[in-house]
Amino acid sequence: MSRQTVSNVLNFPDRVATATRDRVLAAIARLGYRPDLRARNLAARRAGLLGYCLGDDGTGGAMGSFLRGLTRATEESGRHLLLFTAAPGLDGMGVYADLIAQRAVDAFVLADVVHGDPRHAWLAARGIPFASFGRTSLLGAEQPGPWVDVDGAEACARLVSGLRALGHARIAFLGWAGASGAIRERGRGCRSRCAELGLPEVVAVEAAANTIGAGECAVRLLLARPEPPTAVVAASDVLAVGALRAASAVRSELAVTGFDDSPLADAVSPALTSVRQPMGEIAEVLLALLSEPRQDRGVLLPGAIVSRASAPIPV
Amino acid sequence: MSRQTVSNVLNFPDRVATATRDRVLAAIARLGYRPDLRARNLAARRAGLLGYCLGDDGTGGAMGSFLRGLTRATEESGRHLLLFTAAPGLDGMGVYADLIAQRAVDAFVLADVVHGDPRHAWLAARGIPFASFGRTSLLGAEQPGPWVDVDGAEACARLVSGLRALGHARIAFLGWAGASGAIRERGRGCRSRCAELGLPEVVAVEAAANTIGAGECAVRLLLARPEPPTAVVAASDVLAVGALRAASAVRSELAVTGFDDSPLADAVSPALTSVRQPMGEIAEVLLALLSEPRQDRGVLLPGAIVSRASAPIPV
Repeated sequence: MSRQTVSNVLNFPDRVATATRDRVLAAIARLGYRPDLRARNLAARRAGLLGYCLGDDGTGGAMGSFLRGLTRATEESGRHLLLFTAAPGLDGMGVYADLIAQRAVDAFVLADVVHGDPRHAWLAARGIPFASFGRTSLLGAEQPGPWVDVDGAEACARLVSGLRALGHARIAFLGWAGASGAIRERGRGCRSRCAELGLPEVVAVEAAANTIGAGECAVRLLLARPEPPTAVVAASDVLAVGALRAASAVRSELAVTGFDDSPLADAVSPALTSVRQPMGEIAEVLLALLSEPRQDRGVLLPGAIVSRASAPIPV
Repeated sequence: MSRQTVSNVLNFPDRVATATRDRVLAAIARLGYRPDLRARNLAARRAGLLGYCLGDDGTGGAMGSFLRGLTRATEESGRHLLLFTAAPGLDGMGVYADLIAQRAVDAFVLADVVHGDPRHAWLAARGIPFASFGRTSLLGAEQPGPWVDVDGAEACARLVSGLRALGHARIAFLGWAGASGAIRERGRGCRSRCAELGLPEVVAVEAAANTIGAGECAVRLLLARPEPPTAVVAASDVLAVGALRAASAVRSELAVTGFDDSPLADAVSPALTSVRQPMGEIAEVLLALLSEPRQDRGVLLPGAIVSRASAPIPV
């Protein structure tokens, strides 16, 4: 077993025959050999680390589940995750540039994507590899670089069908100002399914921000209308908790659904029907996209409806 | 300006006179010089990374706030955080050993500490540097290595005084089976303040686990007793949400306090009085302890009571 063969197995496993690879790995396990990762990565001109910018998690804790999935998927790819913080928008790009220039990371995973997020175009223009959880713009617009997202339009259409099965006809969609394209897509899914089912046009309202208080304000105004909705499809669990609070304040029997299936969904009373994003699978697809030569590929995954007391949809 | 001086400024800033350091840093900024971090760290025989094992966050999202604080504090110390996952207990120590042997990290920050956690003794025995957010054992027992914790006993004593001011006399403490020493301390704080105030002995109950459902079960049993408590001090927000649910099921006007000030606290109705742990400060002290030569130092920080409708304590 030559030193070069061992090196190839560790650094370029695809160049080595399967039988050889198995033999080398068995020997490594037997000897308890631990390569010096830093020296090895320096020789291979790579950091062995992916950069991930930690956001403020306005989802009520759902991004914690994504981070766990991403940490595991990165480990399974033989690398680790390096955490950093950066200012939002273009102001923060210096941090990304430094991490690449210092060879601290090989690529980035982007999340917490906002409408018109400049990071994708900025990184793509400089040839810096990345993959994005989330889309920057409304469907149809081009987005640089590979991305994964959950098909919120389709999940919200299924929520509307479920609410219809519970007898609801006047359904409102609750989004927030400045939300990303993927979140606006959730409203489009509601509208088109309502039209298909011959229901009245969905009232779409925008809360001032993705917070419980802003959601409560928006739904209080909604419930004061002459013909208020009997169900609200909210674009996030946080807004849905605000909607429940508004309904409880005016003793309305409003059905409410959320999105994210965060720790909040199970903690509030009534517990919240929500859409679970498959965070583990999203992370695995992001890692797969990072290792692909083909760029600009998008993957849309289905969300799973988790039915609870706030809108006991049959699933 | 010699090459050695520049190198000293970057790698051993304490060895260089302030004026020289300022001059070199200004020149670096002017030239837009970015050192190759990997080569630089390899020469200095360090990774420039701290390892942090991502837990399952049973706190309802409060650990997200600690992770943000830790990421920022690590950046301010000129390093970054490397995330990893490992099995609980001794089974996971191979991952820690590998990260050190491969020189992927220089030290560890431990959190999610459980009762009898073996990691501290294991790392200390091998001379691997670490600092711990949390204590492994009841007060008085020795714990290897430096640690930071929040003084839960003192915070819970203040909660008891606040509940007394609201007219409560029969106060129960709700913990969970297998909780860490720091969490048992919270119960001790309740008991001793009740004794000081001449209140009846605190009923201490243990939920089967730190979950909403287990908290609800435990408090339902508590409320079915002949002389039920009128207030519950819960060892976590998650348990407190369960206590609120149990009280609502039997239409009891139970006052409830939580611990962690997680996103749940503001989302449930009534909103939860809780204890905020100063996560940013905890992270900064952990980083300071890691750079100190003196080992086995413990730092106890005060928690802040955040008063809400579930127990509107005057603060």
